[in-house]
Amino acid sequence: MNFTLTVLGTASAMPMTGRYQSAQVLSVHGRSFLIDCGEGIQRQMLRARIPMMKIDSVFLSHIHGDHVFGLPGLLSTMGMKARTQPLNVFAPPSFAPLLKFFLSYYGEGLAFEIRHVPLTMKAPEVILQTKSVEVLAFPLNHKIETFGFLFREREPQMNVRKEKIAEYGLSLTEIAAVKRGDDVVRGGQVIPFNELGYKPFEPRSYAYCSDTAPFAALPRWVAGVDLLYHETTYLDELADQAALRHHSTTLQAARCALEAGVKQLLIGHYSSRVKETDRYEAECRTLFPATTAAQDLMTVDLPLVKAE
Amino acid sequence: MNFTLTVLGTASAMPMTGRYQSAQVLSVHGRSFLIDCGEGIQRQMLRARIPMMKIDSVFLSHIHGDHVFGLPGLLSTMGMKARTQPLNVFAPPSFAPLLKFFLSYYGEGLAFEIRHVPLTMKAPEVILQTKSVEVLAFPLNHKIETFGFLFREREPQMNVRKEKIAEYGLSLTEIAAVKRGDDVVRGGQVIPFNELGYKPFEPRSYAYCSDTAPFAALPRWVAGVDLLYHETTYLDELADQAALRHHSTTLQAARCALEAGVKQLLIGHYSSRVKETDRYEAECRTLFPATTAAQDLMTVDLPLVKAE
Repeated sequence: MNFTLTVLGTASAMPMTGRYQSAQVLSVHGRSFLIDCGEGIQRQMLRARIPMMKIDSVFLSHIHGDHVFGLPGLLSTMGMKARTQPLNVFAPPSFAPLLKFFLSYYGEGLAFEIRHVPLTMKAPEVILQTKSVEVLAFPLNHKIETFGFLFREREPQMNVRKEKIAEYGLSLTEIAAVKRGDDVVRGGQVIPFNELGYKPFEPRSYAYCSDTAPFAALPRWVAGVDLLYHETTYLDELADQAALRHHSTTLQAARCALEAGVKQLLIGHYSSRVKETDRYEAECRTLFPATTAAQDLMTVDLPLVKAE
Repeated sequence: MNFTLTVLGTASAMPMTGRYQSAQVLSVHGRSFLIDCGEGIQRQMLRARIPMMKIDSVFLSHIHGDHVFGLPGLLSTMGMKARTQPLNVFAPPSFAPLLKFFLSYYGEGLAFEIRHVPLTMKAPEVILQTKSVEVLAFPLNHKIETFGFLFREREPQMNVRKEKIAEYGLSLTEIAAVKRGDDVVRGGQVIPFNELGYKPFEPRSYAYCSDTAPFAALPRWVAGVDLLYHETTYLDELADQAALRHHSTTLQAARCALEAGVKQLLIGHYSSRVKETDRYEAECRTLFPATTAAQDLMTVDLPLVKAE
């Protein structure tokens, strides 16, 4: 029942020795979702001991090189390792020619289907539902079409209190109703479901926002998530550079976290000008104390919190 | 006056934690030639302290992913660093669509020209001549069109012996003739140039052969080079795999070095099955003792050898 983020790269476009470019893996109940795919991701997955073949789906925010140049190698390796399970790639329409080119040049002998699901929404929309998680995509504000992603653990079934089964003599049909979150109705009597049962845990949530300049709707779209990853390409003093390049500063990311009322803020996508991330973190914390500067191969585990 | 090879990657197609994929930089008299360009090459160049902007030309053996997937990122970085110097890429014709695709998708704002020089020769041909080096390309024997490269330092001008200038009272015209390697002729008298002058050093040479199965002409084409890099994807026991995939074994590479009469053999492009390279090296040395198993970030310096 894990909900664990592994950060594989934290650099922005210009390469650095100490950092890889954008790529993350979110593992929910053992299923792995790859978010962006910077160059060298396979090496980072090997180091983080994340099995490449276990990647369930891929989510690409946009097609800038520092977010996708690791994909051809990864897909080739999946092919060499004889993957047969289809791979969904949720990505903007601009990804289609990249995939077409890859398949025409490097697709020979691939035994698995790569299905591009194009993202075109103007506001958050569900793009994937599994047994354990639902994923929404929403537009960001970057130079080219770019999308953010919100991963939400699904509401768990209610647990039925054993003592109430005896007390009310609940039938199997009534127990099933409580599990679904429905009240039990007997003639005129209504027994509220939350007297008979309880939610075993609070669903966890993670939002990924890179690359983006700030915009009014974003805090609303990621409101209340447990963990928000928001890019901070620039320190506050370079706000003009950030605006010019449709990126965010530390304070802009922190303001988004604050307005959205998230529990934790994780920052990254650092400019190559700055080697130490202390200043990024310190600037964010002036507005939003629960900020962590992401580092390559850092793992953020969101533990299960009992709802009772 | 250096002639130095830096090996950036020694793995074959399947990624490994300890090794990058094929890429090398040969530096001749301070000019840097990039040979193949596996994924992650920028990181390796940073670690090896090879300035990306100093790359003079690129030589691509073939377009398999493990030899080219680092190129889009490298070209993008050169663009961000505002390179203006044109970049020649010597590569098979199959590279043309890759370059076209890269330029159409990621070429916006590049301030330098990328010139693809297509390789189509059936036997060694000179493809580049600079003041210090001449480069030849020749076909290899792989699954797809693939080329090897031979870098030869150019013959130096003769040095004129000072004592002979006085002894014969050589004129400026006669001195120039000796420098060019011409005899001095005075009426019926011929004074041989090598009595009057001497070659200051022996030109150095390096040949790159990856990926290839053995074939009869290859030892002749790389005959006598100071340093031969020859792939050894497989140990001898996997000769059937090597044949199937148009690769070479240790013994095949060593036999080529022996027949070609090269001074040193450098091997690499190791299969991911084998973690230690001792066995590759040991097998080669049974036939060709001057074998070294290349390691990532290894540097091989060919020192200047005086001809006298």
